[in-house]
Amino acid sequence: MNPETLTLLQQHFGSKLSTAGAVLEAHGRDESRIDFHLPDAVLFAESEEDVLDALRFAGERQFPIVPFAVGSSLEGQVIPVQGGLSLDLSGLNRVIAIEAGGFQATVQAGVTYPELNRQARQHGLFWAVDPGAEASLGGMASTNASGTGAVKYGTTRDNILEMRVALLDGRVIRVGSRARKTSAGYDLKNLFIGAEGTLGIILELTVRLWPLPAEVVVLRGNFQSVAGAAACAVSIMGAALQPERLELIDEREIHAVNVHLGRHYPERPTLWIELASPSRAALAESLALCRELCEDAGAQDLAVASSPAERADIWEARHKAYSAMVALHPTHVNLSTDVCVPLHRLPEVVAATRAACDGRGLDASFVGHVGDGNFHVLFHAAPDDKATWDAIHATYDEMMSLTLAAGGTCSGEHGIGLHKKKYLAQERADTLELMREIKAVFDPTGLLNPQKIF
Amino acid sequence: MNPETLTLLQQHFGSKLSTAGAVLEAHGRDESRIDFHLPDAVLFAESEEDVLDALRFAGERQFPIVPFAVGSSLEGQVIPVQGGLSLDLSGLNRVIAIEAGGFQATVQAGVTYPELNRQARQHGLFWAVDPGAEASLGGMASTNASGTGAVKYGTTRDNILEMRVALLDGRVIRVGSRARKTSAGYDLKNLFIGAEGTLGIILELTVRLWPLPAEVVVLRGNFQSVAGAAACAVSIMGAALQPERLELIDEREIHAVNVHLGRHYPERPTLWIELASPSRAALAESLALCRELCEDAGAQDLAVASSPAERADIWEARHKAYSAMVALHPTHVNLSTDVCVPLHRLPEVVAATRAACDGRGLDASFVGHVGDGNFHVLFHAAPDDKATWDAIHATYDEMMSLTLAAGGTCSGEHGIGLHKKKYLAQERADTLELMREIKAVFDPTGLLNPQKIF
Repeated sequence: MNPETLTLLQQHFGSKLSTAGAVLEAHGRDESRIDFHLPDAVLFAESEEDVLDALRFAGERQFPIVPFAVGSSLEGQVIPVQGGLSLDLSGLNRVIAIEAGGFQATVQAGVTYPELNRQARQHGLFWAVDPGAEASLGGMASTNASGTGAVKYGTTRDNILEMRVALLDGRVIRVGSRARKTSAGYDLKNLFIGAEGTLGIILELTVRLWPLPAEVVVLRGNFQSVAGAAACAVSIMGAALQPERLELIDEREIHAVNVHLGRHYPERPTLWIELASPSRAALAESLALCRELCEDAGAQDLAVASSPAERADIWEARHKAYSAMVALHPTHVNLSTDVCVPLHRLPEVVAATRAACDGRGLDASFVGHVGDGNFHVLFHAAPDDKATWDAIHATYDEMMSLTLAAGGTCSGEHGIGLHKKKYLAQERADTLELMREIKAVFDPTGLLNPQKIF
Repeated sequence: MNPETLTLLQQHFGSKLSTAGAVLEAHGRDESRIDFHLPDAVLFAESEEDVLDALRFAGERQFPIVPFAVGSSLEGQVIPVQGGLSLDLSGLNRVIAIEAGGFQATVQAGVTYPELNRQARQHGLFWAVDPGAEASLGGMASTNASGTGAVKYGTTRDNILEMRVALLDGRVIRVGSRARKTSAGYDLKNLFIGAEGTLGIILELTVRLWPLPAEVVVLRGNFQSVAGAAACAVSIMGAALQPERLELIDEREIHAVNVHLGRHYPERPTLWIELASPSRAALAESLALCRELCEDAGAQDLAVASSPAERADIWEARHKAYSAMVALHPTHVNLSTDVCVPLHRLPEVVAATRAACDGRGLDASFVGHVGDGNFHVLFHAAPDDKATWDAIHATYDEMMSLTLAAGGTCSGEHGIGLHKKKYLAQERADTLELMREIKAVFDPTGLLNPQKIF
């Protein structure tokens, strides 16, 4: 950004624009901590007008504009790799309306999902997508985030009814519908979901809420291997138990959680299975069937967490598994993966991936939203340990080949950002050019979050 | 299509190409019976190669190409209004694979959903979207069809994992993923779903299957008014009973069904509510709660259909309601509407629409997938009865204003086709131009199903 442009923005936005070192640094990285690049300035937008003004200036002066809210992306999505303006939307934090009878809420893009849940709870409702970080709803829409709740309630994509989106040319458009279904013209809503801010800036979302389940338990059990745990997850899905959550967490991640949170979970590959029903009797039936399936699959130490406190402990552990692993190796760099495969191929892909890690002697840990066929391998090494990084990248390549051969995808929920462009090009060789042509319809000169996805 | 082009196609496709009068006529209309236009020729494609050859010829010789399978569209989607080639895909009728462990099936675009269900049933699975007509899966994808099952299982959109699509330039692309979720690049899959054949030709679909529910009943009850029945439906949804189907059918439609199918249902506004559970005990609990909600809402003559035969009778009646109404007035033309509104606005929009019909003395009947906020008003009049048609169109306009004011959509499930272009332009004034620009990426000269949607 040239000095005159910066001066212009400072004059227009006043104290909402910051070039303070600490502010620029906080907007130069995300949770992945792999890449780092400073923006030229950060705009703390306080209104839709601020966003529209920023877009107008970007178009006139041709500088990059990169949306930011919580900074919890994992693939470098919010990093302004070409500098320009980091557009901080965390000030657009108003829950505009909750329509309990319509199971929907309208929020500004900077509202975090825990805040929405805090307000929805008093209506007996909740936002069901739970990625674990304190993500904003605009950010979740931009990567189609999901997490533990998706196995029952779908991903962010499935839970957004309508959005208002600002385009580079200053138009604000409405995509999707507040009706539960629509067949009215091309589906532009789903084009913006998962577009990582490369097509427009999401201003406002009307989202689906769900009734809070009445009776809930978590069953946990340990297995001989991650592949054995994955196979059990497949059999639970096959029995149509429709769990609320169905999570795999391996012995290394359990160890990290035990150390980090002072827990005493058995350090073995584990499934955490949340079941819910409208009544206690119905829940007891589901639980009995689920226990039986776990025992048949060789589960040990089956235990039931019934109280809200015990359940909250388990999901806190799941949410903090990533940061617990990162904390175990404070001087290392971490690389998280995010493949998702059809359910019937999950056990073989997990087993082959584990064998690939073990074969190269890598200290790689596994967690997974296995009811969806989605799992993450977390690698780590010292930044300068070239031999280990070569082994990690070779393993990641191998994991991708296994995934694509099984009909899977390089990203189940984290998106592409900077880190998975190579794998997207492999997975979507036949449509990458079409995606670029669509990008050009909205952003012909490449100002919106440049270098992401492609 | 000029004579040389027709000769070229005849030489290339031989007996697969037809210009027989009866064949052209069968491809010149759809279920709506409002518009009619003959194609120049019909190609009965027997393979993907036939489709690709047809597209190549269309591009080279610049003639329109309009996909056709069962012809069950309701908004004129399959009518070749500019002539050209009707591309009949009903010969692409192979169920390629059913992966029971992955809850998915791969089918060619011409497979009908009842045929898929016939084959899935032996695996304990089913395709959950049930629009009532014997629609093809390619056709259902092209309009994002839904019907009775959507309240529990979502629309066609929600149940398609991956598609292979032929583009005008001869490319075959894969959109979506066989994994249950993906965040890998722009969502092109949802762009083709609901595009009514205007962007490309769907060749093959991998779809989601669901476990057949174990214990099922249908509760039926009668109400004083359609608005009263709609209000009861909203309270059932609010109680999180998650019905399998939740259908409103008014006294006129019940009368038509009684006449047409020899039934003896009470001729009153009615709800048909299907409930399912994994066990009998759980089902009994749901049924008791549902009965209570119906009684609180003033339902009368509550009756439970438990046997498969009784339930099949009810759903046959629902599926044939449209043709039963049409048969009541054999010399009339029918006009079906398809609005969908947020659930909390449904009773008021139904009541106001009914008042608008009654105020103009129209013999209009109501059916609705009311758990989704979607309802259809069926109008009819003699073709030359200008006064009644004026009243019908004025009522339809009024219904659309009510719908849009309530945050709803002009099409819940039938699509736009020829008949709803005016209403789409009203609902999507801010994005229609963007849709045209996206169309131009795939079909710059407007050969794919011209004049539809826009």
